[in-house]
Amino acid sequence: MGIQLSFWIEMIATAAFAITAVLALANRGVDLFGALVLGVITAVGGGTIRDLILGVKVFWAVDQSYLWLALAASAATFAFRPLFRQRLVFRTMLYIDALGAALFGVQASAKVWDSNFGVPLAPVILGVITAIGGSLVRDVLAGHRTILMSRELYAVPVTAGCVTFAAMSAYAPQLRDETLLISIAIIFFFRAAAIHWNLQVPERLITKPRS
Amino acid sequence: MGIQLSFWIEMIATAAFAITAVLALANRGVDLFGALVLGVITAVGGGTIRDLILGVKVFWAVDQSYLWLALAASAATFAFRPLFRQRLVFRTMLYIDALGAALFGVQASAKVWDSNFGVPLAPVILGVITAIGGSLVRDVLAGHRTILMSRELYAVPVTAGCVTFAAMSAYAPQLRDETLLISIAIIFFFRAAAIHWNLQVPERLITKPRS
Amino acid sequence: MGIQLSFWIEMIATAAFAITAVLALANRGVDLFGALVLGVITAVGGGTIRDLILGVKVFWAVDQSYLWLALAASAATFAFRPLFRQRLVFRTMLYIDALGAALFGVQASAKVWDSNFGVPLAPVILGVITAIGGSLVRDVLAGHRTILMSRELYAVPVTAGCVTFAAMSAYAPQLRDETLLISIAIIFFFRAAAIHWNLQVPERLITKPRS
Repeated sequence: MGIQLSFWIEMIATAAFAITAVLALANRGVDLFGALVLGVITAVGGGTIRDLILGVKVFWAVDQSYLWLALAASAATFAFRPLFRQRLVFRTMLYIDALGAALFGVQASAKVWDSNFGVPLAPVILGVITAIGGSLVRDVLAGHRTILMSRELYAVPVTAGCVTFAAMSAYAPQLRDETLLISIAIIFFFRAAAIHWNLQVPERLITKPRS
Repeated sequence: MGIQLSFWIEMIATAAFAITAVLALANRGVDLFGALVLGVITAVGGGTIRDLILGVKVFWAVDQSYLWLALAASAATFAFRPLFRQRLVFRTMLYIDALGAALFGVQASAKVWDSNFGVPLAPVILGVITAIGGSLVRDVLAGHRTILMSRELYAVPVTAGCVTFAAMSAYAPQLRDETLLISIAIIFFFRAAAIHWNLQVPERLITKPRS
Repeated sequence: MGIQLSFWIEMIATAAFAITAVLALANRGVDLFGALVLGVITAVGGGTIRDLILGVKVFWAVDQSYLWLALAASAATFAFRPLFRQRLVFRTMLYIDALGAALFGVQASAKVWDSNFGVPLAPVILGVITAIGGSLVRDVLAGHRTILMSRELYAVPVTAGCVTFAAMSAYAPQLRDETLLISIAIIFFFRAAAIHWNLQVPERLITKPRS
């Protein structure tokens, strides 16, 4: 993956994270300030926790583009809610969000793997945290049920991809490009299938029905 | 601002943060231990997150006065609840709390700006986190709605002041003292006005009424 | 305490933390993935926050045994819920969990004390965080009331033991082994008594009855 391409995909993913977050919040009632704060937290929160655990400078202090974009995307979404709520736009955003989660997660796993930090488990854990940590913090601060307690298939595809990355990196380290592509594809297509067919965690994998 | 004066204002603000936290918790039911823990978290939580992100030693491990004072203020508030609940005392505490938020926020912005960490956005973000982060963590742990989801004007004044600090520092770096004073004044008087006139976020800036 | 013995007790405690967490979650409805994530967070979350505040590499990136064991224990508990729910097994787990909290808490206090980090308050605070931080994060992510807002006697025994450790370390530094043993014993027996007699925080230490 070229650095340039990666940068632009990341920018698109950052915006998609903020946009889908503000839309979810807007449906439950939030003010402009809350939308900006929670949109930014969703977009950069996961990577922030990852960098704290890795012990490196947080990425948004190194390059502030992520913050500016997350702010702009959140504000635009709040201002033009009716546009983003149109079915076609909203669904497109969900797919871009899925691509963002795939890219952020696998990229983080690769970064952690390459710095030989707690291989092989830490790359998986920090990949998942990078992709879903921002959403978790947002839901906690907003008083919403987190995706860990919902039947939505979001964290599971991300984990499947990060585990694939770790397994292939361990057993076929020479296939780096293939490993990246396959891991990203697993997350994206698994998540896209969940969006498209509205798939959920099967009932029998849950200890009891939720009220 | 002299170091000495700043230290004493910080001490007063730390106590005010703990006192207002314990009073809010006491109205909903908390035991002595919970009051102590959540009072201390409210007083030092925001600065702790700031220091973790900055990558410096947490301030309460450098100088434990903050912890001792937060503990003492929390315990005293729990023990003498009827006194602190008197209207005059309670309202005085709210204004001191506002002064504390103003001082903590702007001081943090200044510290981050001077260490050239992610200027200009990171100083704003870390200033806001310093001032309101402790309350957010407390509300999450106590199961209460956070100020991000309420219509209370608390985070907005703090952000207005920190943005002012960043803007003036960028465009008029020679006016450091004026920048500090104006930023602190904006937060304090905006917040004091919200307390005095019971101002809230205007309805039309909210996506839909809350139940 | 020999390093070897300490390692095995820690392993048992890590497993007990994960097991009791998954059982508590299973009673309220959780899927396999949520059980794994929240079981691991309960087992290693407290130590992670401690290491971030101390500014050292997180312990599970240094030695991944903790993660593997927490994963295995969580999965086994989810799979064999009926077994672990048997009264005798469940109560045994509660006592092992109490031993785990005692050991993790005091060990962390000792580690922080020896690195002369914010003595004497920081060792107490980080000891408590190590023992209960994982449970707090789990409850927040699962949308459950945290132990800070319940009348359960869990955090209080841990704090009593960590305070004892700090007091004895300050006034009788030559009695290190006795200090460790007494502090651990205070946590374990206080907590065990709470389990055995179903002790709760006395009503008059609470500001008002909870609904």
